[in-house]
Amino acid sequence: MTDPECLFCKIAEKRIPASIVYEDADLVAFKDIFPKAPVHLVLVPRTHLASLEALTPATAPLVARMALAAAQLARELGIAESGYRFLSNCGPDAGQTVAHLHFHLMGGAPLGEKIP
Amino acid sequence: MTDPECLFCKIAEKRIPASIVYEDADLVAFKDIFPKAPVHLVLVPRTHLASLEALTPATAPLVARMALAAAQLARELGIAESGYRFLSNCGPDAGQTVAHLHFHLMGGAPLGEKIP
Repeated sequence: MTDPECLFCKIAEKRIPASIVYEDADLVAFKDIFPKAPVHLVLVPRTHLASLEALTPATAPLVARMALAAAQLARELGIAESGYRFLSNCGPDAGQTVAHLHFHLMGGAPLGEKIP
Repeated sequence: MTDPECLFCKIAEKRIPASIVYEDADLVAFKDIFPKAPVHLVLVPRTHLASLEALTPATAPLVARMALAAAQLARELGIAESGYRFLSNCGPDAGQTVAHLHFHLMGGAPLGEKIP
């Protein structure tokens, strides 16, 4: 299921351009348009889920898939040993800006309190 | 598999006290000893994995389980609608302090750039 008005659904369907660095049948990873670190990717499921709050036992495996993809991308991008942050902001207090479940992968420099 | 010298293995096995708020056969969630937000929990698998970098297809479902548990805890703690951050720091650039895979759940106030 996708949402025709959702920015990340549009990116996943290539109706809006993005620097896609990885994709498979279930996931898409692309460069964050406002990077906060030398490596800053956004990983999304193709299925439209508003946030972690919308997760169910049926869709939760997508989070495992995103974590595995993030670790693999970190290796490919040379930041597996230096380290990275993997996070999802859910709802207003966390500053979630797009209502489609996504995880950020940030690394390539000491991150301190850097947050997307 | 657990590591007898690992702090979070010790907490999961109750060899070191912690404010445990949730546990099941695979996961333990406890209050962060240095909270950075009104709600600040640490979720860990009982199995010892050093970080996301150690994740395999066999162990990745634990991340899905942690995400589901975090969403459920957020509902129980009344922060599901106000929002929360769910993140894992991996390696030195992210400031990972305990070499046992863990996710932070933070919420209860606007988080800004607050990071564990």
